[in-house]
Amino acid sequence: MHDSPKPSALHRIRRALLGAPIPTSRAHHERLSPFLGLPVFSSDSLSSVAYATEAILGVLVLGGAVFLTQQIWIAVAIVLLIVIIAFSYQQTIHAYPSGGGSYIVASENLGETAGLFAGAALLIDYVLTVSVSIAAGVLAITALYPFLLKHLVMLSLFFICVVAFANLRGVRESGAIFAFPTYGFVFSIIVMIGFGAYRAATVPSHGQILDPTPWLGKESNHAFMFLILRSFAAGCTALTGIEAVSNGVQAFKAPESANAAKVLRWMAFLLSVLFLGISLLAMKIPHLSLLPNDDRHYTTVAYQVAVYAFGGPHSWMVYVVQLFTALILILAANTAFADFPRLTSLIARDGYLPRYLSRLGDKLVFHNGIIVLAAASGALVVIFKGQLDLLLPLYAIGVFTAFTLSQIGMVVHWLKSREIGWQKSIAINFVGSILCGIVLLIIAYTKFMDGAWVVLVLLPIIYGLFKMIKARYKSMEQQLTLTDEPLPVASGHIVLLLVPRVNRGIMSALEYAKRLKGECQAVHVTLNDKSLPELQRSWASVGGDIELVVLPSPFRSLIEPMVDYVDKIKSSHPGIVITVIVAEAVSTKWYQKLLAESVALQLKTALASRRNVVVANVRYFLN
Amino acid sequence: MHDSPKPSALHRIRRALLGAPIPTSRAHHERLSPFLGLPVFSSDSLSSVAYATEAILGVLVLGGAVFLTQQIWIAVAIVLLIVIIAFSYQQTIHAYPSGGGSYIVASENLGETAGLFAGAALLIDYVLTVSVSIAAGVLAITALYPFLLKHLVMLSLFFICVVAFANLRGVRESGAIFAFPTYGFVFSIIVMIGFGAYRAATVPSHGQILDPTPWLGKESNHAFMFLILRSFAAGCTALTGIEAVSNGVQAFKAPESANAAKVLRWMAFLLSVLFLGISLLAMKIPHLSLLPNDDRHYTTVAYQVAVYAFGGPHSWMVYVVQLFTALILILAANTAFADFPRLTSLIARDGYLPRYLSRLGDKLVFHNGIIVLAAASGALVVIFKGQLDLLLPLYAIGVFTAFTLSQIGMVVHWLKSREIGWQKSIAINFVGSILCGIVLLIIAYTKFMDGAWVVLVLLPIIYGLFKMIKARYKSMEQQLTLTDEPLPVASGHIVLLLVPRVNRGIMSALEYAKRLKGECQAVHVTLNDKSLPELQRSWASVGGDIELVVLPSPFRSLIEPMVDYVDKIKSSHPGIVITVIVAEAVSTKWYQKLLAESVALQLKTALASRRNVVVANVRYFLN
Repeated sequence: MHDSPKPSALHRIRRALLGAPIPTSRAHHERLSPFLGLPVFSSDSLSSVAYATEAILGVLVLGGAVFLTQQIWIAVAIVLLIVIIAFSYQQTIHAYPSGGGSYIVASENLGETAGLFAGAALLIDYVLTVSVSIAAGVLAITALYPFLLKHLVMLSLFFICVVAFANLRGVRESGAIFAFPTYGFVFSIIVMIGFGAYRAATVPSHGQILDPTPWLGKESNHAFMFLILRSFAAGCTALTGIEAVSNGVQAFKAPESANAAKVLRWMAFLLSVLFLGISLLAMKIPHLSLLPNDDRHYTTVAYQVAVYAFGGPHSWMVYVVQLFTALILILAANTAFADFPRLTSLIARDGYLPRYLSRLGDKLVFHNGIIVLAAASGALVVIFKGQLDLLLPLYAIGVFTAFTLSQIGMVVHWLKSREIGWQKSIAINFVGSILCGIVLLIIAYTKFMDGAWVVLVLLPIIYGLFKMIKARYKSMEQQLTLTDEPLPVASGHIVLLLVPRVNRGIMSALEYAKRLKGECQAVHVTLNDKSLPELQRSWASVGGDIELVVLPSPFRSLIEPMVDYVDKIKSSHPGIVITVIVAEAVSTKWYQKLLAESVALQLKTALASRRNVVVANVRYFLN
Repeated sequence: MHDSPKPSALHRIRRALLGAPIPTSRAHHERLSPFLGLPVFSSDSLSSVAYATEAILGVLVLGGAVFLTQQIWIAVAIVLLIVIIAFSYQQTIHAYPSGGGSYIVASENLGETAGLFAGAALLIDYVLTVSVSIAAGVLAITALYPFLLKHLVMLSLFFICVVAFANLRGVRESGAIFAFPTYGFVFSIIVMIGFGAYRAATVPSHGQILDPTPWLGKESNHAFMFLILRSFAAGCTALTGIEAVSNGVQAFKAPESANAAKVLRWMAFLLSVLFLGISLLAMKIPHLSLLPNDDRHYTTVAYQVAVYAFGGPHSWMVYVVQLFTALILILAANTAFADFPRLTSLIARDGYLPRYLSRLGDKLVFHNGIIVLAAASGALVVIFKGQLDLLLPLYAIGVFTAFTLSQIGMVVHWLKSREIGWQKSIAINFVGSILCGIVLLIIAYTKFMDGAWVVLVLLPIIYGLFKMIKARYKSMEQQLTLTDEPLPVASGHIVLLLVPRVNRGIMSALEYAKRLKGECQAVHVTLNDKSLPELQRSWASVGGDIELVVLPSPFRSLIEPMVDYVDKIKSSHPGIVITVIVAEAVSTKWYQKLLAESVALQLKTALASRRNVVVANVRYFLN
């Protein structure tokens, strides 16, 4: 670029970290094939098998070890739910090829309120996705290296930064980065299930050692039901992330909808297989160690399954499985990093969030959203000290709020559109919406005291915030709209040139002042009476017919007398426009800049609340 | 003030904390009588009796308990030094009625280099004065309440903040605040000495229990001398602060010099009496507990003297003495807070420090200097964990550097001026300069390894910094001076009006653009091709004959296309002046401002390195 100065140091650092900018015209080429799309959008969903089985068992064990046998029925119920919801979302993908997240589907079909609640629910859940996935990923590592347990929080924050950084560099790299760990994870877990199945078939199992005195007696039907429902609700964390594909249809290569639907089907299939496999193997482990029984000597169920399958903790395959688990979990946060900023940009585009969140950065990603997400999820990790079992109860309630609103929205959509085959689609979405609604009630009821209440309180707060922002934008737009009412026309223009001394910098400001129409006055604020006559002499020789106004400064401030003078002119000449010209000698090096006072900035701040006053900063370059 | 808007929240908070501004015309009335001047300028000096005796004993004990008896001769030598140096400074006060700190005296008589070294030495010592005094003050409290010992650093930082805050509110309050504790301290110590003397005379003393096997044998003459000199150097901390009065003559009521000299004499007298009294009583204490022998079970010598004088640790007078000691020590930091900013303003006025340090704030005090001093001394307290015995070896070397340079300067002064009575004055200053020089060598030699080296390294670094700043100011002045060389005259003026959309805000910017001479262009950066035709239609209806230039934005930035366009105009029209007008819709509430993007600021930053470009921000007020 011709004669443009060197970019600033900050600018160069930013470039070095984030790489060169990507032009909008390349946006299409940045899109994902199904092969790269599966890892980007399914890491959240698939990785949940690393903790979903454990979440179910962790609740069941509260009733006594005998209840652990119920686990397999709950797992089957959840797989059924996965299949039905995946079918439901496949309808959405085809109906909304431009990207149909719950926010859009609910807004368009159920109105603003439902849409905003769906949006708020999803935002909360994306934050939790990052916190939960990173916390679980760190636990997969600490299962191998328990001495790291005391650094849970630091490790989690480190990985959040890594993922955020990868996303700031742009989406193409995301697909490439996440393919290997996701496919590696799927493959290694399938191998593990295979080994485990062989072992279960050949080695006589002890079965689980049953506690002969369960905590629950048979007579307590209500408590039994509550426990089963609560463990089912805990297992629903396996469904988080399943909607990610429908939110990001536009990230796929053409044909977008078909590719997205293909990815969704594969994801649901793999999720079901992996989840069922791990759940079945978990039943075969003789001495399962479970929170909260084993308190804080944390070893995950997934790790115990791997140890069982490969015949001991020192098999190298155990390490492979754990490392892939850690990788996919840490990268699962990426689903949220891809979708959270996309969603905030949609909400911002509609005016419910600050508009600058809707702007794509120069790397074709939404920088602001990425940074907000990293900060919020990092805060959660710190607050909950990186402990997965405390974070999990908050999870899933937001997801199912959004699921339910989205599915109901789809039912309304089919009623309105009546496209070919709408009868089949509406039936699928109807079943989906009823099921999601029931699951939502179960989760809210059974997890309320464990933390779900936090989310239920946050939802209306975020909704209120959305509405306030929208109202403010509306009011701003009304005030700014051109109407028949005439705009106030200024009654004149006075140019005030600040003259602290007479030098080349001031002369160049004077030269500029002459390029403005209107009466020009030179203004001097006296801090030192002794130097005044000298200054007045100098001005007389260079100022021509421009009068020098001298302002006393009883409180030794350069700013206040100037502000008072501007106020005086404004009151004696109502409707006048005033331009204040401040000359500034500019050094080029930062350490030289330390010597300069920013009078222009101070004056600008002081005059910021005055109407019809413009501060113009004329710079004279040194060196 | 007519029709001026409400002051900002920040402004109102500042006012509430610091009080109303004080006009320059009241400067004279803010000055101090001798009665109020003594506490303000002597708290540093007098308070040093709280630790000087202990500093001497702490060194002597290294040679074995038998050496402690030498302490009284060292104390007598130091009192002699006090008298001579006070006489020397009295000459300075009369020769420099406008305030003759070491910096001024050395600069004027010995030249720039000596002056700057004196200035650097004093700056370092003022910082140490604050750290040492506050640390010692906190120890006076912990002697009463040992459980507070673990909060040394927090307590010290708290008191530094209190003193800094008192100074930010203005000097008049300083005099009033410090009179009571200083006079209370002097009075209570005199009472203590009286009680102690009575007790020593009536109660048969055990004398000190002498260690029969001193660490030093009689043969080791060199080691003996070194120990004596080192304890003398340690005791020289009693002399710190004695020059404060001569630095601040202008703070006194007229006749300034006579009042200042009177305060100096009283200060030297009281200092000698208190120091000798405490030193004598310390000899009478049977089992003196001393660092480093007693390791970190810190109880001060001054406290042990008070316990001895008043017959036990539970006498209420012990509490009175300790609390006054704590008060005067913590407030002693005030001497530095009065003088450090005064000195930096003198150095800044001469161009060796950033000029804004030379500006009196609206409370007639130098705000910037106060804040710098508080930060630097707070850092020292944190680095040395508030431990007095580690801070003390750094102290006094700066003071005696300045003393020596100042006294030599006075000798030169009398040689040049030959006023009436110059023979007597030059004799006094000559003796003073020789003595100070010898003491300086002793301190540098004996304390070098204990920390004095830090100061000796810092001195030339600060000197170099002074010279660099001066050189930069000189170069700036040369570049800015009006010469016969003609100033470049702009070849024309182009006004660029940024038009992101058409609304009332843009219309008011357009109205402003018409008030500037020169060709006007409207510029639109397209982020969204679809909305472009609509915008062009709107502009056609309101823009009159002003052309709308449309700039594509391949990287989705508002800023870069604008900067490139400005560069293009500059290269095709060399020497042209460009005004970029940015319209901004301004909200009045801070939470409303969160919704606005600061395009003007971003553009200004991006264009900051371009010559002949002025960014004018036209604000349209909402609500």
